[in-house]
Amino acid sequence: MAEQPTFEDVVAAAQRIEAHIRHTPVTTSKSIDDTVDGRVFLKCENLQRTGAFKFRGASNAIWLLSDTECARGVATHSSGNHGAALALAARTRDMDATIVMPAVSVRSKIEAVEAYGGNIRFCGPTMADREAMLEEVLAETGAVPVHPYDDARIVAGQGTAALELTEEIDHLDVIVVPVGGGGLLAGTSLVAERYGIAVYGSEPAQANDAKQSLDAGRRIATTPDTIADGLRATIGVLNFEVIRNRVRDILTVSEDEIIAAMRFVWQRVKIVVEPSAAVPVAALMRYRELFNEQRVGVVLTGGNLDLDALPWQD
Amino acid sequence: MAEQPTFEDVVAAAQRIEAHIRHTPVTTSKSIDDTVDGRVFLKCENLQRTGAFKFRGASNAIWLLSDTECARGVATHSSGNHGAALALAARTRDMDATIVMPAVSVRSKIEAVEAYGGNIRFCGPTMADREAMLEEVLAETGAVPVHPYDDARIVAGQGTAALELTEEIDHLDVIVVPVGGGGLLAGTSLVAERYGIAVYGSEPAQANDAKQSLDAGRRIATTPDTIADGLRATIGVLNFEVIRNRVRDILTVSEDEIIAAMRFVWQRVKIVVEPSAAVPVAALMRYRELFNEQRVGVVLTGGNLDLDALPWQD
Repeated sequence: MAEQPTFEDVVAAAQRIEAHIRHTPVTTSKSIDDTVDGRVFLKCENLQRTGAFKFRGASNAIWLLSDTECARGVATHSSGNHGAALALAARTRDMDATIVMPAVSVRSKIEAVEAYGGNIRFCGPTMADREAMLEEVLAETGAVPVHPYDDARIVAGQGTAALELTEEIDHLDVIVVPVGGGGLLAGTSLVAERYGIAVYGSEPAQANDAKQSLDAGRRIATTPDTIADGLRATIGVLNFEVIRNRVRDILTVSEDEIIAAMRFVWQRVKIVVEPSAAVPVAALMRYRELFNEQRVGVVLTGGNLDLDALPWQD
Repeated sequence: MAEQPTFEDVVAAAQRIEAHIRHTPVTTSKSIDDTVDGRVFLKCENLQRTGAFKFRGASNAIWLLSDTECARGVATHSSGNHGAALALAARTRDMDATIVMPAVSVRSKIEAVEAYGGNIRFCGPTMADREAMLEEVLAETGAVPVHPYDDARIVAGQGTAALELTEEIDHLDVIVVPVGGGGLLAGTSLVAERYGIAVYGSEPAQANDAKQSLDAGRRIATTPDTIADGLRATIGVLNFEVIRNRVRDILTVSEDEIIAAMRFVWQRVKIVVEPSAAVPVAALMRYRELFNEQRVGVVLTGGNLDLDALPWQD
């Protein structure tokens, strides 16, 4: 197994990527505060470049490459946000990036990878399909693989969102982030541990591999069936080791709760979040008794989705 | 005619309402900058309390009332944003507010007035319907009328958005705002004149009374037919006098351009704006040659709309 990332890696990543990423704003909402009966601080990574926090980890990975590796280019598989992030990060260093994407990916996410100059290779819908296609690409091109989440460079980069949040907002009691592959949760856990802040993961009940894994003490894969397309991955091996003794719990929410929370954020906070980013907000609402009178940080992870197919219009 | 408001009135309004309003963020978008080939600063009044800049003018009017006037309550007519703003502003001073609304108003705007504790009286769709019903309410209740736009108190309050923008962003060359009744444009003109910044109004071609009035040198009413429900009013008498020698031009845009700009802001800037707020963005895109290499301020006026009936889904 790769060496575990540390808090110091997150700090180093923040310095490394500073010139490339956007320092995203933190917003608040009286509606959410009233609902939770606490004070909630929303870190708007939907306003990050590429529309998602994934640009942090991708930038850290790209700017850690040697010049020799640079010349080889990078490759990854992604349902969208990591792919777009890696494509744009590679462009900031004038490198090639090949992105293996399921052909069923959200259209706007495919268009984003194209817009950032990534070379797309479409594959089937399963993780096995993705991995097989990526192996093929690596063999063909000699590119350096950059895993979307189970990679210490990625974890350290994703942790910089929570680092910025703690720098801007004093005395947080707790941070809630979504968990898919677990890169963000792992990076956030490292920051929270340092500052004595509690951490919860949040995930769809219909993609609750992290919850099951945490409860069982070993990684358990599930068959995800959720609207939160960014959270369909199974928690990574490295990431599970990072989080297992650092998070307080994983809070699960229903599909209806995710959609309602997403709509609530659009209607009340006036910002566009994708379903995955609504998951921690849904968790705040469902488990509000955990957050009464707390100062709560939430990472709104992304805002990429097809505006033609909003979930409340079915 | 009422006395014209001045720049000093805007400064006084800013101090008066400071404790009540939200100092909204200014955001930028590389996508918009690239489209315009300029540098665009978006003042996010969609994140203002009540979801629109109207809360500024309403707060200024409310906090200028004498204690005796307070006891009488206030009343107004509004298709939505001013009504919600006046209802909440009245609540900050523990007063009654009666809002005359067309029964055909956007549902979420009706719900907002209710949520802020306003007493709603529904009326027919025309301005004459609104005014007749308001007269009735004033006779019944003895309330103090607060006109939605043609009122020096309102103009001064609306101007505080541009004042904040100029305080935060140096060296603006030009500011673009939408024009309906003209309160925002009038207030913005007072600020821009003081700092030597050019001002453009922007309005739907299908509600182009301000453009026609400016060209003719006298107020001309039209029959508005636009998705931008906040811009259906005819420019006010007072406001026309304020703007006629202060704005460079009124830029008109088509319904399709408004919808495309609205979608662009949602998709790329990741914030929720209502059609009226997309009008100045549409103007930037249609008349981009005016803004090349300029530093451009835009007031994104509001974010209130029915999420169930998005215009690109017809």
